[in-house]
Amino acid sequence: MRQKSPWPLQQKIGRMMWGMVEGGVFRFSPHNAYPWRAMLLRMFGARIGRNVRVRRSVHVEIPWNLSIGDHTIVGDHAILYCLGRVTIGNHVTISQYAHLCAGTHETHSREMALLRPPIVVGDDVWIAADAFVGPGVTIGDRTILGARASAFKDLPPDVVAVGNPARAVKAREFQVASSELRVQS
Amino acid sequence: MRQKSPWPLQQKIGRMMWGMVEGGVFRFSPHNAYPWRAMLLRMFGARIGRNVRVRRSVHVEIPWNLSIGDHTIVGDHAILYCLGRVTIGNHVTISQYAHLCAGTHETHSREMALLRPPIVVGDDVWIAADAFVGPGVTIGDRTILGARASAFKDLPPDVVAVGNPARAVKAREFQVASSELRVQS
Amino acid sequence: MRQKSPWPLQQKIGRMMWGMVEGGVFRFSPHNAYPWRAMLLRMFGARIGRNVRVRRSVHVEIPWNLSIGDHTIVGDHAILYCLGRVTIGNHVTISQYAHLCAGTHETHSREMALLRPPIVVGDDVWIAADAFVGPGVTIGDRTILGARASAFKDLPPDVVAVGNPARAVKAREFQVASSELRVQS
Repeated sequence: MRQKSPWPLQQKIGRMMWGMVEGGVFRFSPHNAYPWRAMLLRMFGARIGRNVRVRRSVHVEIPWNLSIGDHTIVGDHAILYCLGRVTIGNHVTISQYAHLCAGTHETHSREMALLRPPIVVGDDVWIAADAFVGPGVTIGDRTILGARASAFKDLPPDVVAVGNPARAVKAREFQVASSELRVQS
Repeated sequence: MRQKSPWPLQQKIGRMMWGMVEGGVFRFSPHNAYPWRAMLLRMFGARIGRNVRVRRSVHVEIPWNLSIGDHTIVGDHAILYCLGRVTIGNHVTISQYAHLCAGTHETHSREMALLRPPIVVGDDVWIAADAFVGPGVTIGDRTILGARASAFKDLPPDVVAVGNPARAVKAREFQVASSELRVQS
Repeated sequence: MRQKSPWPLQQKIGRMMWGMVEGGVFRFSPHNAYPWRAMLLRMFGARIGRNVRVRRSVHVEIPWNLSIGDHTIVGDHAILYCLGRVTIGNHVTISQYAHLCAGTHETHSREMALLRPPIVVGDDVWIAADAFVGPGVTIGDRTILGARASAFKDLPPDVVAVGNPARAVKAREFQVASSELRVQS
């Protein structure tokens, strides 16, 4: 028999309320209303750093499972499917239509019990357009997950990974100017 | 010359009416209104089994080409592009953003004539998040098509297939408890 | 430090106005209102040929960077992300959910400066369902990019390419009848 709903009542009510907020004043806010959307996410328990730009067409499944560092941008139509915890670092770029999926199922029986392995995205990472990050995956600092790439295993820092499943194909050349470190870190 | 529309008038009217229903009372129904959405699909000729849960954000291209067995769930934003017949078994899980595409084109000339090879999904299958099932594909009982995997050829029963194009990489361990068989089959 | 917005004020106003038109009278136009949508795109600087069919659910990021030849169709939910120029030929079929992405970033520093390499799609090409064409890519005449395939390098004419990253796996057999050449070219 398929599993009963695994969500306690309080979570269900919270998710229903978030659904109404996301489909209303979040989705239809002005393009540049980044502080407004950050405030809405924080009201529902997300940790959102300074100078974070989340576009209005982004989908956040459960905001209280979401943590975003400073100076990070989440592009149009990105999907933050945070059934489990999703932790995104500082200076991260998540491009349009990218999909971070922190949920899966136990597959040995018809129950298909929900599992919620966390996702961690390091600092200065770029998750490019339409890329996919699977449940339980950690992406190391400064790494690039290329457009349409799909990561199902951890990626080390400082690589460029492409394909489905994603594999590291080269090192990322990256330099943080010392002026930036003084100003922003 | 590009082919004229291959659809007779009756089909066009039916599709237009379904478009209005899907974009209205289907899409904006309450989250848990599964019996209501099953009824709407049946009104437009779909065969929908018992205890089927189709989320309100699902897209069904032509409902009278759709057949879904018992105890099956179709997740948010899944695309059932049933230009041809799409037959989904019992106890199937179709996760969010999965795309079943029962249409293609004859490619030897500019006519690009529409072809509509059927799709068949067996019992106890899991089509995971954002996976793609191409035209003419049959997926065997209990098989898992992993997240973001794209199947263009038949998959046998009892395997786990990943990648693009999808290939079976291991067997699926799966057991139906005898109690479940008595209660639900 | 992340780059300041690279868009001059005039472009920002134009994009805001297009956003309102696309989200309004374009998106909610009748299914067959192809001349109306072509006219709207032309008003915003797109070059649209004769007998072009752009579905109402298509997204065009910056219409004045878009050029479409004659007798071309752009399917439902296709994404023409023309930050840079996107040039689509004659008799092209772009299927549902395909994504042409003419934008990327300079990745050597936190600035992540926006780059906008152009995309060129030749005549008689088919970009199949949910395929992806990356920045800077040219697709040769008559070539097919298969469903869910993702092209990051140029594809020659007359091939069928599949997978992620997409690779040519066979030749495309294609014949334009001499009657068609007389009537339409």
